[in-house]
Amino acid sequence: MLVSGSTITLLYDHHRQHVQAALTDIQHDHHEVIIATLHVHLDHDNCMELLAVRGKAAVIKRIADELIAAKGVKHGKLTVTSTGKDLPT
Amino acid sequence: MLVSGSTITLLYDHHRQHVQAALTDIQHDHHEVIIATLHVHLDHDNCMELLAVRGKAAVIKRIADELIAAKGVKHGKLTVTSTGKDLPT
Amino acid sequence: MLVSGSTITLLYDHHRQHVQAALTDIQHDHHEVIIATLHVHLDHDNCMELLAVRGKAAVIKRIADELIAAKGVKHGKLTVTSTGKDLPT
Amino acid sequence: MLVSGSTITLLYDHHRQHVQAALTDIQHDHHEVIIATLHVHLDHDNCMELLAVRGKAAVIKRIADELIAAKGVKHGKLTVTSTGKDLPT
Repeated sequence: MLVSGSTITLLYDHHRQHVQAALTDIQHDHHEVIIATLHVHLDHDNCMELLAVRGKAAVIKRIADELIAAKGVKHGKLTVTSTGKDLPT
Repeated sequence: MLVSGSTITLLYDHHRQHVQAALTDIQHDHHEVIIATLHVHLDHDNCMELLAVRGKAAVIKRIADELIAAKGVKHGKLTVTSTGKDLPT
Repeated sequence: MLVSGSTITLLYDHHRQHVQAALTDIQHDHHEVIIATLHVHLDHDNCMELLAVRGKAAVIKRIADELIAAKGVKHGKLTVTSTGKDLPT
Repeated sequence: MLVSGSTITLLYDHHRQHVQAALTDIQHDHHEVIIATLHVHLDHDNCMELLAVRGKAAVIKRIADELIAAKGVKHGKLTVTSTGKDLPT
């Protein structure tokens, strides 16, 4: 099994009321994959959300696609990192 | 001035004793840019660190390069997100 | 001016739809005080939210009271830490 | 089994070189309990660290005691929250 640790970065305007509820619902459906989420206020309108995720690469890809496609998300990116097992120490 | 919110993801083996001190020193030199850092234990050996950063794109790029080049870092990526001001709401 | 770094811990059921929107609204009103927020899924229903805050003690106390009193929050606590300036190194 | 979600808040001067390595070692020994850790720069010298933990109350208490007693930690507090199962919804 290929296990991968990755980051999903989302940018959205928190004034769009349903975006946050939608993102939380999706995240909760995959709570065994999403380790923790960090929220910061980027500026007056925009929130940036960083999700630390761990799981099979295909599952992570599908969750990221779903989050990034959610209505109200302005920008989203998946950054895949290896577990480092295949990298020189 | 172009201000950008971005994510720097770092993967390292915490058993490499000086890697964490080195990363903290670099982060502290730029504490006005690095908003907050989220740490998770990816597996027995590997830590994943997600840095939420806000600042000029060129400054962020330079900090990311310095962190990713630090001895002991196995993997690192910079994910640039727009502030969304140039995007349709 | 007394500046203090503190933690606000909140526990709520994310199925209560309006609780998250209410908490985000309050947090956004005080975005200059709330540095960053960490979300974790505690169990199937409950979310735990950790807010890192920095500011005058009286302001932090008022924000914490408002958040903890929000409808849907089951449990909330404010943990005040000193900046350490008055503590021996 | 009583499972509890809690927050451990730590305040330390990052210039004290071994404090961070010591804290990471302790945290790694208990990585099944510590979900994620949020770091912020409180001021020029002081770091604040918020640990989201989940586990048996007695285990969490022991880990918190160990972290707070670590050399270089100026201030530390354990905030216990219920899982909410015993609270009215």
